[in-house]
Amino acid sequence: MSGTLENTRAADATADAVQVVVGRNGRPKIAVFDSGFGGLTVLRSIVALVPNASYLYFGDSARLPYGNKSRETVARYTVEAAQFLEKCGAEILVIGCNTASSLALYDVKSAVEIPVVGVIEPGADHAAELSRHREAIVIATENTVASHAYQRALARRGFATYEKACPLLVPLVEEGWTDHPVTEQIARIYVIEALRSAPPNTDVMVLGCTHYPLLRGLLRRVVPQRIEFVDPADSTAQVVASMVSGSTPQQTQGRRLSGTPEQGCPDGEPAFRFFTTDSVEKFMRMVPIFLGRAVERVERVELEGKA
Amino acid sequence: MSGTLENTRAADATADAVQVVVGRNGRPKIAVFDSGFGGLTVLRSIVALVPNASYLYFGDSARLPYGNKSRETVARYTVEAAQFLEKCGAEILVIGCNTASSLALYDVKSAVEIPVVGVIEPGADHAAELSRHREAIVIATENTVASHAYQRALARRGFATYEKACPLLVPLVEEGWTDHPVTEQIARIYVIEALRSAPPNTDVMVLGCTHYPLLRGLLRRVVPQRIEFVDPADSTAQVVASMVSGSTPQQTQGRRLSGTPEQGCPDGEPAFRFFTTDSVEKFMRMVPIFLGRAVERVERVELEGKA
Repeated sequence: MSGTLENTRAADATADAVQVVVGRNGRPKIAVFDSGFGGLTVLRSIVALVPNASYLYFGDSARLPYGNKSRETVARYTVEAAQFLEKCGAEILVIGCNTASSLALYDVKSAVEIPVVGVIEPGADHAAELSRHREAIVIATENTVASHAYQRALARRGFATYEKACPLLVPLVEEGWTDHPVTEQIARIYVIEALRSAPPNTDVMVLGCTHYPLLRGLLRRVVPQRIEFVDPADSTAQVVASMVSGSTPQQTQGRRLSGTPEQGCPDGEPAFRFFTTDSVEKFMRMVPIFLGRAVERVERVELEGKA
Repeated sequence: MSGTLENTRAADATADAVQVVVGRNGRPKIAVFDSGFGGLTVLRSIVALVPNASYLYFGDSARLPYGNKSRETVARYTVEAAQFLEKCGAEILVIGCNTASSLALYDVKSAVEIPVVGVIEPGADHAAELSRHREAIVIATENTVASHAYQRALARRGFATYEKACPLLVPLVEEGWTDHPVTEQIARIYVIEALRSAPPNTDVMVLGCTHYPLLRGLLRRVVPQRIEFVDPADSTAQVVASMVSGSTPQQTQGRRLSGTPEQGCPDGEPAFRFFTTDSVEKFMRMVPIFLGRAVERVERVELEGKA
């Protein structure tokens, strides 16, 4: 199925994905790619639904941010990482990065043999399921807002969308201040500004940055109750779960990740390998913030086109 | 003088620099390089001391941040920009970027014919002038702290130094919240943490990130009065002024920058050209935050080794 390049960019990753079932012959091997740490929230959401799997996570931190790079550069970087993950035995590849999902999805589909799922189309599908009024706010980084990736995906589903850049939220999450009063004040300022410019009947808010699910509790306190959240990480996890044979949703929070592949991993438990192109130390410091648990081992990888 | 590679990295950019006098035959042409916008505070400090000059500013925003890249990559990027500025007629080059000053100063000196001044050594010299106890705090970005560039420069002057990473301050400045109550709360948290770990007789705080001079007023409210600030942008400006024939300190705030070179620029007024490798719009939005005045024109440049 992959290798088939869709005719239009409006083509839907989800439609592609659900026809594929992996893991029939044992534990599926699921890879998540991101330019940095944010994709770890996507990994977390998938693990919650598909615990009995082997996971590969690739954070291309040495070359982040992708958001200020050209389409060609983002595609080249993402394809390199995708091919690396395919060589590591990945059976499904999730592009857990908004910029790469928006700019590189079709290049990656052409470059690898395994199914590829981005985060934007599942998020937009979920928004369309939840919304009665087809009016939405998207909160995201400055670069994701400038790309208008969610706005376009939602427009194809009949939405009027207001996009609000919230540049302070990523560094606040990476500082670990996910439930800090300062973060709540800043989120409140952003939300008030967004509501002032948003369509009047807005009833969904898309968390258009992979860091934001960690602020969901805090955001619930500052966003009016009439507005439901769409977390594309969760939406993407649903798509992946539908592709995996015999998966049953269940919680796997609070356990310590092994950080090494299958060896000795009990059935029903996830196994993990983490790769980064940058500092292993920073990665190990970030993982607990994003996954809610520590990791024992992170492998450093050098890719060709070093930034 | 440039082209002479010093024997040790401890060699002092300042000692080099003061032997050179430019601008004897008219307005000097002074270039400031940075990986992004922060170097604009260095430009501002130099303009305040040397108003009767032509300025070139180069912000390599498409390839920032430099802080997570290898020494070789940072040197290659900085040399490219330095050679570009030399071709534009620069007579002095200021590396207004902590990472590039730390990693690329000697490569740049070998690669261009004009004198080159970094920000770290002038900042450390200034700290040594101010401090009685030779105990310092450096506040900086995570990457500058990890490089220990200021710690090493200060150690050569007999200092015990505590370095505190303050990752939220750059995005707060770029959001324009330079005098916002939220920024003050965050700065207070960082300062309290730093004071807890700093040497007991600390009497100087180095503003080790080019964004921080914009928070100087706010920081003065949260840092104990016994601690004096060292702003390497100001220290570097003093070094540049000493290299320029007939310069007299004077304020030039509040005027509108021409954004075009000499043509029609009255004597005694600075003229400017701004170059960026990334979005011209973002650059034009950032300039007023950093320089305190608007700019009419920013030129986009493509360099070879695109990130």
